[in-house]
Amino acid sequence: MAKELVFGHQNPDTDAIAAAISYAYLEKQLGADTEAVALGAPNEETAYALDHFGVSAPRVIETAANEVQAVMLVDHNEPQQSVSDIADVRVSHVVDHHRISNFNTAEPLYYRAEPVGCTSTILWEMYEQHEIAIPQAIAGLMLSAIISDTLLFKSPTTTPLDRAAVVALAKIADVDYEAYGLAMLKAGTDLSAKSEAE
Amino acid sequence: MAKELVFGHQNPDTDAIAAAISYAYLEKQLGADTEAVALGAPNEETAYALDHFGVSAPRVIETAANEVQAVMLVDHNEPQQSVSDIADVRVSHVVDHHRISNFNTAEPLYYRAEPVGCTSTILWEMYEQHEIAIPQAIAGLMLSAIISDTLLFKSPTTTPLDRAAVVALAKIADVDYEAYGLAMLKAGTDLSAKSEAE
Ligand SMILES: [Mn+2]
Ligand SMILES: [Mn+2]
Ligand SMILES: [Mn+2]
Ligand SMILES: [Mn+2]
Repeated sequence: MAKELVFGHQNPDTDAIAAAISYAYLEKQLGADTEAVALGAPNEETAYALDHFGVSAPRVIETAANEVQAVMLVDHNEPQQSVSDIADVRVSHVVDHHRISNFNTAEPLYYRAEPVGCTSTILWEMYEQHEIAIPQAIAGLMLSAIISDTLLFKSPTTTPLDRAAVVALAKIADVDYEAYGLAMLKAGTDLSAKSEAE
Repeated sequence: MAKELVFGHQNPDTDAIAAAISYAYLEKQLGADTEAVALGAPNEETAYALDHFGVSAPRVIETAANEVQAVMLVDHNEPQQSVSDIADVRVSHVVDHHRISNFNTAEPLYYRAEPVGCTSTILWEMYEQHEIAIPQAIAGLMLSAIISDTLLFKSPTTTPLDRAAVVALAKIADVDYEAYGLAMLKAGTDLSAKSEAE
């Protein structure tokens, strides 16, 4: 099976990075040859989450067609939010929680969207359905993404499924999700450190 | 929860009719207020399957917006294959096995597509995942749809999942799927009866 790159949208947020890592891992367990990459460097919040759970930031790509023939998209579907040469590769899989817009394919594909607060919530369901164990570090990144997208359940896009996912993932990751989540959100909005450095 | 209509494409085939019936039933078990309808009368093959399993043909609609605000699409996504006033309703759910083309939404939705031989195969997976029992008659229609779309596994679009679904559904429906499937496919191509009647 030919290698495929898995990535989220440009200007990646925590869900774009975490969903790429967790979906690449899930598809690898299901037999695909995948690599999680990103369309940009992690922001401060994502860097905090990656550091906390000991995961390296995914390699940043500018184009995909020079490496692979097919890709898997997470946390987006709109071509203008995707890799610059998205028109030159086949999209084989999408996992997302946004509206569908300007997304067209020549062939059938795997597409999974649900109107929930975070892509990582859908991925948690998919791990459950395939009965694949989530590694501790990946569980930590997934709950980080859900806390980020839902602002610790304060966003109106939050659903009961997002809460259920965080509770289940926190057990696997072995963290107090409220304390950790507040610290992570604070790391993302903490401009003082940046100002001092500048 | 407001009522939603569930339907397949224009000039419905057995999958378009069977998937509407089985998805409407599944969503009803999950708490939605659904009615399976159709964008045309059943063809000869579908009429044979409905008659065999004792299910009435779904009501035929010309427009949807006069009845509901939101709809669920099965076995298609392209607006030109859908109800005439598709632009005037919200699409809340799609279950399909075709390419995605000209399908755009203003809001997030539930979208589930897989590159398998039949929509009813995906629905079988969804019943499994939700652990909802499939009524005998609906199981019969679902296996009819898979046999129809895959031409009893002869079509190159056939996947191992389609075969697994038919074997499982045949147990629930209590039919010999090979004998039944050949008779159903024959009913759909049997022009002699029609010629005699004409
Ligand atoms: Mn995002
Ligand atoms: Mn997201
Ligand atoms: Mn069809
Ligand atoms: Mn079909």
